[in-house]
Amino acid sequence: MPGNSFGTIFVVTAFGESHGPALGCVVDGCPAGIPLALEDIRRELLRRRPGGGGASTSRAEADEPELLSGVFEGRTLGTPIAVIVRNGDQRSGDYDALKDVYRPGHADWTWEAKYGFRDYRGGGRSSGRETLTRVAAGAVAKQFLAQQGVTVRAWASAIAGIPSPSPEEPDFVLEEAEHNLLRVPNRKTAEHIMERIEALRDQGDSAGGTVSCRVEGLPPGLGEPVFGKLGARLASAILSLGAAKGIEFGAGFAASAGTGSVFNDEPLPAEGERLFPNVPALRYRTNRAGGMLGGISTGMPVEFTVAFKPVPSISKVQRTTDRRGAVKELIIQGRHDVCIVPRAAPVVEAMTALVLADLLLLRRCDV
Amino acid sequence: MPGNSFGTIFVVTAFGESHGPALGCVVDGCPAGIPLALEDIRRELLRRRPGGGGASTSRAEADEPELLSGVFEGRTLGTPIAVIVRNGDQRSGDYDALKDVYRPGHADWTWEAKYGFRDYRGGGRSSGRETLTRVAAGAVAKQFLAQQGVTVRAWASAIAGIPSPSPEEPDFVLEEAEHNLLRVPNRKTAEHIMERIEALRDQGDSAGGTVSCRVEGLPPGLGEPVFGKLGARLASAILSLGAAKGIEFGAGFAASAGTGSVFNDEPLPAEGERLFPNVPALRYRTNRAGGMLGGISTGMPVEFTVAFKPVPSISKVQRTTDRRGAVKELIIQGRHDVCIVPRAAPVVEAMTALVLADLLLLRRCDV
Amino acid sequence: MPGNSFGTIFVVTAFGESHGPALGCVVDGCPAGIPLALEDIRRELLRRRPGGGGASTSRAEADEPELLSGVFEGRTLGTPIAVIVRNGDQRSGDYDALKDVYRPGHADWTWEAKYGFRDYRGGGRSSGRETLTRVAAGAVAKQFLAQQGVTVRAWASAIAGIPSPSPEEPDFVLEEAEHNLLRVPNRKTAEHIMERIEALRDQGDSAGGTVSCRVEGLPPGLGEPVFGKLGARLASAILSLGAAKGIEFGAGFAASAGTGSVFNDEPLPAEGERLFPNVPALRYRTNRAGGMLGGISTGMPVEFTVAFKPVPSISKVQRTTDRRGAVKELIIQGRHDVCIVPRAAPVVEAMTALVLADLLLLRRCDV
Amino acid sequence: MPGNSFGTIFVVTAFGESHGPALGCVVDGCPAGIPLALEDIRRELLRRRPGGGGASTSRAEADEPELLSGVFEGRTLGTPIAVIVRNGDQRSGDYDALKDVYRPGHADWTWEAKYGFRDYRGGGRSSGRETLTRVAAGAVAKQFLAQQGVTVRAWASAIAGIPSPSPEEPDFVLEEAEHNLLRVPNRKTAEHIMERIEALRDQGDSAGGTVSCRVEGLPPGLGEPVFGKLGARLASAILSLGAAKGIEFGAGFAASAGTGSVFNDEPLPAEGERLFPNVPALRYRTNRAGGMLGGISTGMPVEFTVAFKPVPSISKVQRTTDRRGAVKELIIQGRHDVCIVPRAAPVVEAMTALVLADLLLLRRCDV
Repeated sequence: MPGNSFGTIFVVTAFGESHGPALGCVVDGCPAGIPLALEDIRRELLRRRPGGGGASTSRAEADEPELLSGVFEGRTLGTPIAVIVRNGDQRSGDYDALKDVYRPGHADWTWEAKYGFRDYRGGGRSSGRETLTRVAAGAVAKQFLAQQGVTVRAWASAIAGIPSPSPEEPDFVLEEAEHNLLRVPNRKTAEHIMERIEALRDQGDSAGGTVSCRVEGLPPGLGEPVFGKLGARLASAILSLGAAKGIEFGAGFAASAGTGSVFNDEPLPAEGERLFPNVPALRYRTNRAGGMLGGISTGMPVEFTVAFKPVPSISKVQRTTDRRGAVKELIIQGRHDVCIVPRAAPVVEAMTALVLADLLLLRRCDV
Repeated sequence: MPGNSFGTIFVVTAFGESHGPALGCVVDGCPAGIPLALEDIRRELLRRRPGGGGASTSRAEADEPELLSGVFEGRTLGTPIAVIVRNGDQRSGDYDALKDVYRPGHADWTWEAKYGFRDYRGGGRSSGRETLTRVAAGAVAKQFLAQQGVTVRAWASAIAGIPSPSPEEPDFVLEEAEHNLLRVPNRKTAEHIMERIEALRDQGDSAGGTVSCRVEGLPPGLGEPVFGKLGARLASAILSLGAAKGIEFGAGFAASAGTGSVFNDEPLPAEGERLFPNVPALRYRTNRAGGMLGGISTGMPVEFTVAFKPVPSISKVQRTTDRRGAVKELIIQGRHDVCIVPRAAPVVEAMTALVLADLLLLRRCDV
Repeated sequence: MPGNSFGTIFVVTAFGESHGPALGCVVDGCPAGIPLALEDIRRELLRRRPGGGGASTSRAEADEPELLSGVFEGRTLGTPIAVIVRNGDQRSGDYDALKDVYRPGHADWTWEAKYGFRDYRGGGRSSGRETLTRVAAGAVAKQFLAQQGVTVRAWASAIAGIPSPSPEEPDFVLEEAEHNLLRVPNRKTAEHIMERIEALRDQGDSAGGTVSCRVEGLPPGLGEPVFGKLGARLASAILSLGAAKGIEFGAGFAASAGTGSVFNDEPLPAEGERLFPNVPALRYRTNRAGGMLGGISTGMPVEFTVAFKPVPSISKVQRTTDRRGAVKELIIQGRHDVCIVPRAAPVVEAMTALVLADLLLLRRCDV
Repeated sequence: MPGNSFGTIFVVTAFGESHGPALGCVVDGCPAGIPLALEDIRRELLRRRPGGGGASTSRAEADEPELLSGVFEGRTLGTPIAVIVRNGDQRSGDYDALKDVYRPGHADWTWEAKYGFRDYRGGGRSSGRETLTRVAAGAVAKQFLAQQGVTVRAWASAIAGIPSPSPEEPDFVLEEAEHNLLRVPNRKTAEHIMERIEALRDQGDSAGGTVSCRVEGLPPGLGEPVFGKLGARLASAILSLGAAKGIEFGAGFAASAGTGSVFNDEPLPAEGERLFPNVPALRYRTNRAGGMLGGISTGMPVEFTVAFKPVPSISKVQRTTDRRGAVKELIIQGRHDVCIVPRAAPVVEAMTALVLADLLLLRRCDV
């Protein structure tokens, strides 16, 4: 599978440069008969848009999707679903100054080291703008997941070193994350973080943070031993985001310092039908494993957290090297997010939805 | 690609149950002409073996590999390389007591939830014993990497909550990690950790820990945008280990709390030829990015750390549920590692080597 | 790999229904730096267009391609190349009569048997119109092949039972195939066939035929043992055309009636450098094997012939069954090719080019 | 997918050189719970063995399979099924004479042109002996197909230019094909062909022929548009056999000379339940399409014929070229089939079974 496709059965192929004519994706393998409207895609794209406020770029993209194939009379056909988004706001001239210089923290030079040249306008294909197509494809996956009773929700669990309440805490209000620009699940924390963001913006600096994600409604039995474990597929999906630098499932890194007697989740008898005549329904008293054992879903919520590095584009003076190999000073101009974590949350959801759609289909082939 | 294969060009397919006739792997896509002897595989398998001491199981497997194909007159043929290891020490009777009960922290029930039944002897295919075939395949990959000047080294960076010295510290001695049973890069820390391991063993408990890995000699330009990023491929490879619960690259989770002005690595002019007529050689003053930018290798060392959960098999009384759906108390008997981190290090190396071999070959198709 | 993608390294993903908003393709894995202009794609699309004359539909599609990504300053970026073609001439109303009836020889019912419903307008995705995207992708592959000195040429070797001269015959004029509407490599034969085509059209009937293809300039060593043999990949590519019913390589079916002493091609010493210090350059006195031995290219021209069934859309009265399960009489109205063989030739070239581009890249990983 | 793996969900990975320690295969993706015994594999391997008589080599391989994984208590586990067969009869010395010479019609030189060297003993991996692992894998697929009510039968439809009766003819007796050494579905024809075979053997020459295959019990709806059509997958599978030079489905090449009014199969209402509320059951009056329309199965028998070239190993004097580049005369010694068609029939069945098992699983993901 080449680098711009993802999945085994439910597969997305993405394309597009930041300042080329359009970005887009093709979703192949979505079952026929799933309700899908342009509005389902537009809604998710809106969630990824710069929210305004201090955290986001003010690039005024309409990000209007167009559905080119795969849907007929409001339902998926079983054929590839192609979505494109035109790049309307192409102030490419802004980027001429960056043509011959390598921005610190960006892929400018690694891209040239690989291909010999690059589309330098706004990062070309290495721009975070490509995540737009992940969200479009994820919107299709979410339609399928909805039919299966599976929901995926992500939120900003820390920004600029300030943590949000965690789900076990009473002041964790997931719905609130949809109502503030930072996607923080508590209004007060959001306000506190926004002050920090604005201070960083004033300093010309930027922030990182973490996104946490929870999947509910997933049946047990998902994941493909041994290399295609649920955690492996999710890790692959999430670490394919340019700014992601780490992921942990369930108790994660904290678990590595604990003991087996504390970390093991106790299996309990569960309500409901046996899964097979010889296999009882179970649930677990706790969920330190994050919803997976041996790489296969347990039926408990899948939970993980992702670390995002600070936005590399800052307005401070930085030293770097140019195409001739000369050291030079650089001040990056233009519109940039101070922190991409709020916008990353729907992208994390999208990638998660793509993985789960794929594994739900593969699951049909188990017995 | 089904669940038991990994890679795009350099592909491993693994098979085998813990107590079946044999485990094995097939490595397809290894270039022809690479020196490969059985001894190269045996040497790596030895590094994965239970080391004795308090940390490991005393299962007395010879783990003697047999090379069935793909090598002629000491060199790879370009054809699939098959390696098998017989399961000699099959005390399957030990496991009869576990036939109808689901061990906490193991995949016993999730496996049955997926397939309807399982080989209950020693975990069957969900046993950590399958990592043996990863190491065998990794040994082939390492032969190819050696030819390309790339080295991969992993060590125990923390066990049972006790950290090893980090590479920047003067008492970090990587060679020492090969000389103590815990694979800790400092003799004194190793002794300290061993005391803790033995205390846990006496309590019938177990420990987790972290493995860190460093790759040197990797050229810039590896990684496949956008879904096949270097970090995504490594994360997929590493999180496919049953006990792995997290991974972070470079500054990782710590970076998520920092700012862009601190996290960005400064590009510097480097010695050596230009990569392309229009692309200079660069290196970076620091390596907080862990050797990758935009998912493509920078030529700096690739560095990451993996979190492993505590071994779930403990001798303490645990509550669980059996096949009939009844709660019962369980004490796991038999031979078990107190901590698998020392044995996980060569497995991390192997998976890393497999990813890099694959990306080095894909790299040939870039221009 | 899902059904709408093809290739391993050089991969095309295609999408689009006959009467949806657009058809398109994404080519991933094309090396960076290959010259590519919209005109290169338009030129190939023109070769596939209805030629006029009696053989083709008069659907007045402009088939104007648009390049959405992957090209910058006239060269490929190494990123996915997306091309779309809008469906301008959507007289969907023509097809309402076919909404509830299954046309003989078409995929109407098999498609519904698979997906439960279909886009009935012009065959939807099962329409031959999808081959347009193959030609667009093939145009990209041809640019890469041109750089490697490889050419692919296909022609109508028989139509309606009337054979064209074969390449060994003096009246075989390959250039002529580009100058007549039937793509027949001899003007007189073309005229003769055209008479037959017109007679069939007058009768409301249709014709089949064969396309032959020859590849020149291919180096020895292409093809992936054992399942990815050159012939296997080409057969897969060509038999994925809806109207293709057979393929034969070199002497093909005739060879199956011959003897080894006649069929074997004699290896001869060849001019030029040794391929490896220990491997001489060879050529073959004859080419009955069609340019491949053991599934690997010999360096001789690759030669094969494809059988296309007669066009199933005919104006004669046919009996069929409708959605309710009732037998009914059907006369297909509208614009239809009498014979698609002339238009199939560039599609055969395109698919061949895609296979060869892929194998040329895989070839780089052999040693 | 590298060259030695085949399939998407139900995937076989094969390995082994003709005179190495062993050949084998790994079947991944077979559903759990399918009955599978070693005897099921042994039985199919026996059908591929040299039958004795004049047609086959007298190499006295036991071809005794060993099952290494994936089966527990007589049923598949859902894990990879590994089968190996030791190479017992390694008279490698026989092949020393061929070390430095390229046999006409064999892959000796193309293999070296690709990899720089080869295992020259008996053709190494390019030997027809590798088909043994296809048959072993096919035996697993057949167990799954049996559960689904699908049968695959192949026979010699022509040998040395002498055709067998075709299925429509009264003297076609499919069971007879299992009772004579040539796998010809008529005893008299078999005797007639055997005389011809013996005459060719006396002349030191060899023969080709065709194998025909018929699949019964396949439901409609199999095949993955557009590149993964049923015919495309079968063609890929079959043309991956080293001696196969052509394939045709249904009326095949003959259809290409016919007209639409004759070739179209008439859809008829069929007994049985509707496939979907809106989709009736159909069957076809004739089956010129060979059981597929638009690349998707129709529910009619899938029928195709394969052309096999004459065995290239003949005892006549041949001219060839050696490693130094010098022309030399060659007489091939040793044990060789005069015609491999009888032994190819079970291999064709095996490859067909592998394709169908894969498509039956993919079919589960359609709606």
